[in-house]
Amino acid sequence: MKRIKLLILLARKGAIGERIKITMREVAEELGISPQSVLRLLDEMEEEGFIEKSVEGRKTYVRISPKGLTFMEDLCEAISNVLYNGVIIGEVISGIGEGAYYVKQYAHLIREYLGFDPYPGTLNVRVLFPKTVFDALCSVRPVILPGFVKEGRTFGDVKAYRIKIGGVEGAIVIPSRTVHPPKIAEIVAPVCLREALGLEDGSKITIKVVRP
Amino acid sequence: MKRIKLLILLARKGAIGERIKITMREVAEELGISPQSVLRLLDEMEEEGFIEKSVEGRKTYVRISPKGLTFMEDLCEAISNVLYNGVIIGEVISGIGEGAYYVKQYAHLIREYLGFDPYPGTLNVRVLFPKTVFDALCSVRPVILPGFVKEGRTFGDVKAYRIKIGGVEGAIVIPSRTVHPPKIAEIVAPVCLREALGLEDGSKITIKVVRP
Repeated sequence: MKRIKLLILLARKGAIGERIKITMREVAEELGISPQSVLRLLDEMEEEGFIEKSVEGRKTYVRISPKGLTFMEDLCEAISNVLYNGVIIGEVISGIGEGAYYVKQYAHLIREYLGFDPYPGTLNVRVLFPKTVFDALCSVRPVILPGFVKEGRTFGDVKAYRIKIGGVEGAIVIPSRTVHPPKIAEIVAPVCLREALGLEDGSKITIKVVRP
Repeated sequence: MKRIKLLILLARKGAIGERIKITMREVAEELGISPQSVLRLLDEMEEEGFIEKSVEGRKTYVRISPKGLTFMEDLCEAISNVLYNGVIIGEVISGIGEGAYYVKQYAHLIREYLGFDPYPGTLNVRVLFPKTVFDALCSVRPVILPGFVKEGRTFGDVKAYRIKIGGVEGAIVIPSRTVHPPKIAEIVAPVCLREALGLEDGSKITIKVVRP
């Protein structure tokens, strides 16, 4: 971890594409290690090709090398690829009872576009991982339930993401107009998920996004 | 690095929100360490709270803990925050000579929206870091040069990102229709950058995005 922490620190200080002046004391304080350890770490990382270092008199200049930048990019990509791979962990909470009304209004579209008759109600899940529902869904193409007007009232487009929860298929539904990444996922399914899966408020669940 | 590699490996195998069965031999092979080291590493990471482990007979089950997931998310965010912070490293290359024509067509918009009279030509830069121009620019709002029709020909919207290169202000210009992340950045500036900065094909340069 020391290596990565040092690279992040150097990058934050501007050592991408430019050399910056550093002092061992300052870096040591930020990493929580001794100045001697910093010196050793810099030498090792220079040898390994992650940084370029030059000493002029009492001044030390450092720049992250192309290899160091690629290493950071690859690591970040590797983590986000495995993390944001369509798994959502959450906790069952009570909705405000509006779900049933909306499921009724959109029922014909759920039938047409998702292929099931929805149970009249949604399961509300507070998302614990990832930080927002969007992080988990960003690489997945939603099914759009097109908006409509009924009895003078406008119902907007809804994005539906097919999911599986405890072996039951359903969908996370998000109004298309939503711009703020929701922390609550609303799930529709052909059955009452609370009953089918024996869930109650506070139950921890794992939701798997089904790719089309 | 061993800790992060193990977490990435476990995540890839599905240990997010679910426990998975692992064998020491298999993990050891993938990490390039001994089975004994894997066992020690798992014990340490369980103690530190990054994973949850259970042994049933000869079978070992592992799940990444909420703390482990947060650690991975935070690390990925820390890296991308410092990496994709408006710095582009590139190499000067020769364009195909089309730049001058387009700069002439858009000159009145560059004057109006960016506030300078452009030198009639663009500096073409092959982007070495980050992997695409978009990675560096994703958090920056562009200035839109609105498209127009002239003598029956349509000129589309162009996104312009203000930048500084060797102390000179200019802009990276990208046609709005472009969907593939470009590997070449085209730069307009009030001066001939090749002359002003003494650049030639192959020169390495650092471009800094100027935030509005």
